[in-house]
Order: sequence, then C-alpha cells, then structure tokens
Amino acid sequence: MTPQRVTLITLGVDDLERSRKFYADLGWQAIREQDDVSFYQINGLALGLFGLSDLAKDQGRPDTKLGFGAMTLAQNFTTTEEVEAAYAKALSAGATALKSPQEVFWGGYSGYYADPDGHVWEVAMNPFWPLNDDGSLTLPAVE
Amino acid sequence: MTPQRVTLITLGVDDLERSRKFYADLGWQAIREQDDVSFYQINGLALGLFGLSDLAKDQGRPDTKLGFGAMTLAQNFTTTEEVEAAYAKALSAGATALKSPQEVFWGGYSGYYADPDGHVWEVAMNPFWPLNDDGSLTLPAVE
Repeated sequence: MTPQRVTLITLGVDDLERSRKFYADLGWQAIREQDDVSFYQINGLALGLFGLSDLAKDQGRPDTKLGFGAMTLAQNFTTTEEVEAAYAKALSAGATALKSPQEVFWGGYSGYYADPDGHVWEVAMNPFWPLNDDGSLTLPAVE
Repeated sequence: MTPQRVTLITLGVDDLERSRKFYADLGWQAIREQDDVSFYQINGLALGLFGLSDLAKDQGRPDTKLGFGAMTLAQNFTTTEEVEAAYAKALSAGATALKSPQEVFWGGYSGYYADPDGHVWEVAMNPFWPLNDDGSLTLPAVE
C-alpha cells in the first residue's frame, strides 16, 4: 500500500520575494533559500515556496493556470488566545482576512486567512484534538 | 511567533464517496468517517476530506469557486521502485497522470498525479533528503 504520509507541501507563489517576506513576518525561518525555491522545516515534513509557473512546469503541464483555496492547511493551538494571536500576526503580515476567529459549530474556535497568493490557512483550537508536546497531532481513537 | 507547523491538511472534494474510495484504493484507512468528512492519521498530523462547498462555507466565502493544483503534496520514498509502485497504484485507483516518474534536473526521480478532484500529489525519491526511520523528514542542514 501507499503510506499515509506527506513529506513536502509546496505552495505555488506568484512572487517569491513577497512570499518569503510574508512567512518571515510570521516569524518563520527558512532552512534553505535558493534562487527559485525556499524550504522550511515543519513538524516532520517540509514546506516549500516555489514559483507558480515553475510548479506548473514541474507538474508536467506548463500551460495550466493553477487554482487556489481547495486545499487548506490548518495550524492548531491549545488556546483561543493563541488562535487570535496567530490570526492577528498573519493580518499584520499582509494576509487577507477570510473569517475572523470565532466559536464554530463543531465545538472549537477557528479563523481563516489567505496568504499573498490565496493559499488558505486555518488557525484553530479544537478541544477534541489535544496536541502532543511537540505540537504534532495524534488523532484520538473514535469512541 | 507563529510556529512552523501544520496540523491538518484538508482536501476539498466534489464527491466524498468517490474520494473515500480513491484513498481506500491506495490502501489508506480513515480513523474517522462522518457524514460529511473523513480524517486520516498521517505523519504527526491529520489529512481530511471535506465537501468543496462545505469548505468554501467554512472559509467564510460560500460563493467562491475554489481552485486546484497550486498547492501540492509530496510523498517521498527511498527507492525509484517505490516511486513507480506508488504512481502505478494511484493510476489504478483512478488518478489522472500528469507526469510519469522520471529522472529530474535536481538529481532525483519524480512523478505527479492528480486525485479525482485535481489535488496534485508528487511521488519522489530525493537522494539528498533521506527519510527518518518513521518516514518523516528532517531537512538536512545547508552545507
């Protein structure tokens, strides 16, 4: 079987310098910055920033206009205050507000913003999904 | 600062049953399947399948048509044979071929396919990024 694993998340970006600045403004540090790509170490995998046209070409379809928003990345926190702080930090770095953090129907607290290219991040506190000490997530067994 | 962390990757899907079948055909097992969402435990985080319209609504923009392909997820392997096997497995499960696995300019071996909704997965072997024993990735320090 194919392992249940993700090694690298790549965000296609229109302006690499703009995106580098955005993530730097969040406090992120790249482990590697090359002419055409930046890599960040995240929890057990990597996140990369890569030019949109380079990404389309790399996918084997150089003439395809790639879309945004149908895949979202969530950052979970343990308190609503941390969610608010992360959301405010993103807006101050130039993110587009989509939904301000609020209590949501599933019992948690969640907001959404879009990065400079429209990639969607959720910031959330889910009381049913406690984080491990290292910030990683082990989904609780179903009751 | 905002931590360099991703807790949940959500794929917006057009037909939840179709997507559940696709990932099941890859050999994935959901830890939780509800009426409107499925969750999979992956390496230190979760991956969810969620209806596209539900996702747009959850993002606070119910009338937005979400796009695909500008964010990619990669699965890395340690051998080219594993890459070929994962690619073949995906096609047999109904994935759309984008780029068959091949030697690429950066010195690795990589292919791309799209899942039933157009979410793009790369399957790759990168000799410069050895995987940890648990399949997670610690990016090597820059020389």
